[in-house]
Amino acid sequence: MAKVGKISGFPEWLPEQKIAEDTVIGTIKRIYESYGFTPIDTPAVELLTTLGSKGVIDKEIFVVKRLKAEEGDEAELGLHFDLTVPLARYVAQHAHELSFPFKRYQIQKVWRGDRPQKGRFREFYQFDIDIIARNDLPLSCDAEVVGVIGLVMGELPVGPYTFRINSRKLLSAIYGALGLEGDSRAAAIRAVDKLLKIGRDGVAKELALISGISPAAIEAILRSTEIQCPISELATRVAALQLSDPLIEEGVQDLSTICALVPAEVARGLTIDLSLARGLDYYTGLIVEVSLDNYPEFGTVVAGGRYENLASEFTDQKLPGVGVSIGLTRLMDLLISEKLVSTLRKSPSIALVTVYDESDRPLCNQIAHELRTLGVSTEVYFKAPKLGKQIEYAEEKGMRHVFFVDASSRQIRVKDLQTKEQVDVSSIAAWAKSLK
Amino acid sequence: MAKVGKISGFPEWLPEQKIAEDTVIGTIKRIYESYGFTPIDTPAVELLTTLGSKGVIDKEIFVVKRLKAEEGDEAELGLHFDLTVPLARYVAQHAHELSFPFKRYQIQKVWRGDRPQKGRFREFYQFDIDIIARNDLPLSCDAEVVGVIGLVMGELPVGPYTFRINSRKLLSAIYGALGLEGDSRAAAIRAVDKLLKIGRDGVAKELALISGISPAAIEAILRSTEIQCPISELATRVAALQLSDPLIEEGVQDLSTICALVPAEVARGLTIDLSLARGLDYYTGLIVEVSLDNYPEFGTVVAGGRYENLASEFTDQKLPGVGVSIGLTRLMDLLISEKLVSTLRKSPSIALVTVYDESDRPLCNQIAHELRTLGVSTEVYFKAPKLGKQIEYAEEKGMRHVFFVDASSRQIRVKDLQTKEQVDVSSIAAWAKSLK
Repeated sequence: MAKVGKISGFPEWLPEQKIAEDTVIGTIKRIYESYGFTPIDTPAVELLTTLGSKGVIDKEIFVVKRLKAEEGDEAELGLHFDLTVPLARYVAQHAHELSFPFKRYQIQKVWRGDRPQKGRFREFYQFDIDIIARNDLPLSCDAEVVGVIGLVMGELPVGPYTFRINSRKLLSAIYGALGLEGDSRAAAIRAVDKLLKIGRDGVAKELALISGISPAAIEAILRSTEIQCPISELATRVAALQLSDPLIEEGVQDLSTICALVPAEVARGLTIDLSLARGLDYYTGLIVEVSLDNYPEFGTVVAGGRYENLASEFTDQKLPGVGVSIGLTRLMDLLISEKLVSTLRKSPSIALVTVYDESDRPLCNQIAHELRTLGVSTEVYFKAPKLGKQIEYAEEKGMRHVFFVDASSRQIRVKDLQTKEQVDVSSIAAWAKSLK
Repeated sequence: MAKVGKISGFPEWLPEQKIAEDTVIGTIKRIYESYGFTPIDTPAVELLTTLGSKGVIDKEIFVVKRLKAEEGDEAELGLHFDLTVPLARYVAQHAHELSFPFKRYQIQKVWRGDRPQKGRFREFYQFDIDIIARNDLPLSCDAEVVGVIGLVMGELPVGPYTFRINSRKLLSAIYGALGLEGDSRAAAIRAVDKLLKIGRDGVAKELALISGISPAAIEAILRSTEIQCPISELATRVAALQLSDPLIEEGVQDLSTICALVPAEVARGLTIDLSLARGLDYYTGLIVEVSLDNYPEFGTVVAGGRYENLASEFTDQKLPGVGVSIGLTRLMDLLISEKLVSTLRKSPSIALVTVYDESDRPLCNQIAHELRTLGVSTEVYFKAPKLGKQIEYAEEKGMRHVFFVDASSRQIRVKDLQTKEQVDVSSIAAWAKSLK
């Protein structure tokens, strides 16, 4: 007998957990689609040359090879490790068939070929949105992405959260005014990105390693990271750094423009946080992160930003974009383990038609058929044992309404398992309507 | 620059095709859920020992290995090639946490590690349902699966189709009455399974290779394959074979019971077809196939049946089941290439709010926000070029309604791109309501 067991890092939900996940997916999809984001789906595999296109492959990749491949056949395919590389390849490949700005959402599994280790997923769903334009992308798109994510967060059962935004342009301008350019500036951004992990002193030490940096610059950078405020205070707080540079003003202005275009309910909750740096090199403007106040150790649940050129490895066209990624599987893992999803039901059905005698089944089926036509997800018990056993099944699966059918009199009675009330039903349509 | 291109056998849709696919998926899901089938999702990979558990691995498998795996590390994981092996492993592993009968649906990609060849998918979606019980599974479950598939087929835009069912039990009884048992019987079933491909004479030749088979038996088997009739005629047609055996009567009775429990609209369309054999060894009762009358070369769009023991490789429990699989990607490929999906829209949005001047954008956003709240998927144009360009964008993406906003007077006008009519809108809520 083959051994069955969990493969470390490849999560698998029970039905009630999968139903909860589908509910969360449905909520996010509804909001994305209400803004006209269109779904795409790319193959699970890409050419290894595509996956490695952003320079060194620093994420571990799973290669895919035919079991019956000839000895010595080189692997050519790998599972995608994010949805950004596939998006870049997709947009470059299909550019002539797409309408720009191209607004897409994509929910798919991604794979990380890590060594198995506790608490680390090697397969998980990501749920991304991006807006890609040709040549130039106005700030209205940054605002749209921030707005959409704000609305999504408002509907997720995660409790209070912190939605932080910043601008790479502003960071670059500040660090530039302090004399840091090119590699030194990138090193400073990477150092600041570690603030939460290594603390202020740790960052100071890392900054000090940058060649040519002055103690005053280190001090100013550390002071800038303390700017964590609503947009209304940003200009004053930045002015207090006493660095004069038109690019700094531009960075502040960009963030103000973005915040002004975001739905008021979302804008109110935004924190401008100059300690937010995001390590990845390719961000050039807005950067965003959402974290959960009650679960600080969880890290970010949403992250992303603006990049000046998405697909430069695949096409000569300039394709700037802005987008974010939701780590869906990690989020579901939290919602499930912290019991933040309220109802865990094992089945989509809410009604069970019991079968008193096998000869009644055609009538029971007919009643169930009518219920389904009226939008009530319904099961008919598959055998005809004692009614108590059938009611137990309904309870176990979380169905609320149990139908009893008297075939001779054609009388139908329904019990509400929650209120324990029983009523006679003369019209199924009327009963179904009363549910809404 | 990395070369981008199609990887043979890994299909990828354009947005308008993906939206069409999502519509089909939504239809099928709605019907599955109305019967209380619950979604599950298993990892893309299984242990190779699990994938090979049904004996010889005759389907080509893609193995999955860390790119940075140590030299000589044996591959342990493979991509699943269907959803039946993962279901068997899932049910065996989680049996103590599931409610039986376990009714699940599952839509996921599967992978076949074939050599690349024209017209053959190596990655595709399957959309399966199965009902798994403990120890014994009544015919009511067979009927439920047939009924659900009948309802699904009734809603797919595929034109006329043929829904054929048969019973392996009946076939076995007939072939048994003709003196064929064990391996000989299995060989006869495999020969009959090729009827469409190799014709009557071809099957006769294959049957003749079975050791100990009589010419009369060959003739009787061939005659039995001509039985293709509604259930009402089955008993008479089978009686005409003049084979007496209680198991034959039982097989006929099973099919009658199943048909009587299927919704009348589905039952009317069923053909009992004794030439339907399905090659796979594990079917023991009902077998089903649906094919499309207008596309005979397409083969089957739905196929499945009953198996006495799903997970015998993984558990000592007896878990009989019945289920079918829809080849979703092949189906979508047909729907798209034959233009059977009516509307191909590039975006979920149906309305565009144009922006006359960048300073109007906050007001435009507000109008769009209200529309979205009312369930109207809406985009705001991302820049403020000439209105003609913005209308073109709406047309290109298939949005029907274009809003024009006069910021000074706060007047809103909407143009219906289909009827070319323009109306002033004083209440957005009233306008949105008029859409329904």
